[in-house]
Amino acid sequence: MKEFAAPVERLAEHFQKLPGIGLKSAQRLAFTVVSMPPEQARDFADAILAASASVRRCTVCQNLTDGDVCPVCADPSRDTGLICVVSDPRDVAAIERTREYRGLYHVLHGVLSPLSHIGPDDLTIKALVERVGKTEVREIIMATNPDTEGEATAVYLSRLLRPFGVRITRLAYGIPVGAHLEFADEVTLSHALDGRQEMSI
Amino acid sequence: MKEFAAPVERLAEHFQKLPGIGLKSAQRLAFTVVSMPPEQARDFADAILAASASVRRCTVCQNLTDGDVCPVCADPSRDTGLICVVSDPRDVAAIERTREYRGLYHVLHGVLSPLSHIGPDDLTIKALVERVGKTEVREIIMATNPDTEGEATAVYLSRLLRPFGVRITRLAYGIPVGAHLEFADEVTLSHALDGRQEMSI
Repeated sequence: MKEFAAPVERLAEHFQKLPGIGLKSAQRLAFTVVSMPPEQARDFADAILAASASVRRCTVCQNLTDGDVCPVCADPSRDTGLICVVSDPRDVAAIERTREYRGLYHVLHGVLSPLSHIGPDDLTIKALVERVGKTEVREIIMATNPDTEGEATAVYLSRLLRPFGVRITRLAYGIPVGAHLEFADEVTLSHALDGRQEMSI
Repeated sequence: MKEFAAPVERLAEHFQKLPGIGLKSAQRLAFTVVSMPPEQARDFADAILAASASVRRCTVCQNLTDGDVCPVCADPSRDTGLICVVSDPRDVAAIERTREYRGLYHVLHGVLSPLSHIGPDDLTIKALVERVGKTEVREIIMATNPDTEGEATAVYLSRLLRPFGVRITRLAYGIPVGAHLEFADEVTLSHALDGRQEMSI
C-alpha cells in the first residue's frame, strides 16, 4: 500500500524533483497544496503553466523574459557598448539591484564544468561571440561566480574573445563590505592585497 | 522594474506561500520550473490540480484519500475495535511504516492551540465522538505528538471520551532506540524511569 493517496504521492514526486527539496519536505508541500482553498491551488497550477509557456530567452542577451527582448535590452537608455557576462538570470537581478550598472548583459545559463559534462556548446557562448562580432562592444565584464568553474569559464571566454580587440575585465575580488578580516580566507585576503587601491582623501 | 519576468515573479510568489520556502528559494524553484521541459511543467501543474480536486477526507477516519473511504478503513482485515488518534495524515504514514498496528485511525488535522486560536471545533473532534458513540470501540490510543499542545489535546480528548467507558491509552514515552542516555533530556529520562518494564529473560 502506498503511504498516501495516489494524487498526493504524485504531487510529492514532482516537488521532490525541485532543487533542495527532499522526500519529507516534498510530502509536506504536497499536503499544503491539498489543504489550500481550491482556487489557490488552481492559481498555482496556472502560474506554472504560464511561466513554462510564456518565458523564453531574450534574443539579444539570453536572459529569461516573457517578451522577445528583455526589459534591459529594450531600454534605450542602456549603454550598449558594455556587456556583463553572468552565469544565471538571478545574477542579472543581483547586479540590477545595485542600480550602478547601466550596460547590457549576457546570460550563459551555466558555467563550463567538465565533471558535469557541461561544455561550451551547452552554454550561450556561440550567441555571445556572434553578438560581440556584430555589435559595437567597448568592454566585456566577466561576472561569473568567483569559484573554480566560474573562474575557468571567465578565463575561457576572455581567451575566446581576445581576437575582437575588446577590453575584457573581471569583477574585483576582495573583502566583502561588513566582513571581519580575521574570518576572511587566505585566498580572498591575498586577492584583496593584490587589488589594493589608493585611498582618495 | 520587476527583477524577473512577470510570470516568474508570479510563480515565485506561489512557491513562497508554501511552508519553509523563503524568497530566494522561491525564485530558485520558479527558475527551475521555467527551465523544465514544457511537458514536465504541464505534468506538475496537472498533479497540483488533481491533488487539489480529488483528495478529500475519509468519511470514517478523516485521513486524506482520493476515494470516499481511505485504504485503511476499507481494509476488512483491520481491527475496527482499535482507534489511534493522530494529529496529521503524515503521522498515519509513520505508524503504518512500523507494520505493527492493525487498528484504525482518527486524524484530527491539528492540535488544540489557544495561542493560534485553534479550538475543538477546528479539529475533527466532533466526528471522533460520534464515531466512538456509533461503533464498537475497545481502545483509543492517543498518538498526538509528545509536546505541550499534543499532550493537552490528548488530555482533553481522554476526558471527553471517558463517559463512553472505552479504554484510553497514550503512546509510551521513553528513550528513543539508538539514543545515548547522556544526551537525553530530563523529562524524557524521568518518563523512561516511570515507565520501566520487567526484563523478559
